[in-house]
Amino acid sequence: MRQSEPQPRPDGRQSPTALAVQRGVLRHLAAHGVVGVTEFSLASGRRADVLALDGRGEISIIEIKSSVQDFRTDGKWPEYRAFCDRLLFAVPLGFPVEILPQETGLLVADAFGAELLRPPPRHALPAATRKALTLRFARTAANRLAALHDPDLLRLDI
Amino acid sequence: MRQSEPQPRPDGRQSPTALAVQRGVLRHLAAHGVVGVTEFSLASGRRADVLALDGRGEISIIEIKSSVQDFRTDGKWPEYRAFCDRLLFAVPLGFPVEILPQETGLLVADAFGAELLRPPPRHALPAATRKALTLRFARTAANRLAALHDPDLLRLDI
Repeated sequence: MRQSEPQPRPDGRQSPTALAVQRGVLRHLAAHGVVGVTEFSLASGRRADVLALDGRGEISIIEIKSSVQDFRTDGKWPEYRAFCDRLLFAVPLGFPVEILPQETGLLVADAFGAELLRPPPRHALPAATRKALTLRFARTAANRLAALHDPDLLRLDI
Repeated sequence: MRQSEPQPRPDGRQSPTALAVQRGVLRHLAAHGVVGVTEFSLASGRRADVLALDGRGEISIIEIKSSVQDFRTDGKWPEYRAFCDRLLFAVPLGFPVEILPQETGLLVADAFGAELLRPPPRHALPAATRKALTLRFARTAANRLAALHDPDLLRLDI
C-alpha cells in the first residue's frame, strides 16, 4: 500500500494577496523556529488567520490584512488578545502601515517571506488558557495533516 | 496565487503492511475523537510509530508490529511508557497476538480501520512531561502540515 497523495483545495475564502502574505508569514515563522496553523478556530467561535507557537510554548496570533478595507471592516481584532501572548498584523508590501494600531506587532510580507517591522508587546496568557490553546493547536494540526494523507479520515470539529 | 499542492512521498522505511496498519489506526483514532502523529521523535531520540492525543490531553503511544520478527527484534518497547499515559500495540489481522505482552493495549487493524481487543492500562504522565510532549506534538504536526502546503518552508528539527 502506498500512502495516499494529499489533495488539498484552496477554500476560496481568501484573496490571492492574503494567501501570499500567509505563505510569507509561515516561512518567516519557520525561519525563526516557530510553527503556525492557519484559519485557527478559537473557543470564541472566531477564526484567527495564523496561530503561532514557539519552542517555549508562547503563542502569537497574526492577523492578515490584505487591504485598507479589510482592516477598516474588522472592529473585533482586539478580542484576539485574550487568546495569545502577542498580537501582530501582517500586511502586504505597499499597505499604509500608519493606519494600524501601534500597540500590536507588525509584519510586512510577500509570498516569499516577511520582515518584522514592529515587535509585538507581550501580555502573558493565563496558564489554563495556554494549556487549552496548545491542545487545540496540536489537535487541529494533526487532524488536518492526517486528513491530507487519508481523504477518508474523519475531520474532527476541534 | 493558489495554495501549493502538497507532494508527500512515502519515506520507504515502512513495509506496506505497517503502512496499512498505520492508516487503519489513524482512522480508528479519528472515529473516537483522537488525533495521531506518525513517526514521532521523542526527546529520548527514539521514534514512536504513532503518538495520539485525545480531547482531554491524554497521550497514547501505539507501536505497530507488522510481523512476529518485527516484535521479537524490539527489546526497547517498555521505554515508551515514560512518554505516554497508555501504551498499545497495533498489529495486522492474522498476527499471533498471544505473543504480545498482556500489560499493553492491543489494536488489530487493516487499512480501513482497527478494533480495540484489549484496553491499555493507564499510567499517568507527570504534568511537566505531558506539557513538553503536547508542545512537541503541536510543533511537529504544524511544521509537517505547513511543509506539505509549501515545499520550500523550512523543516524544523523538533
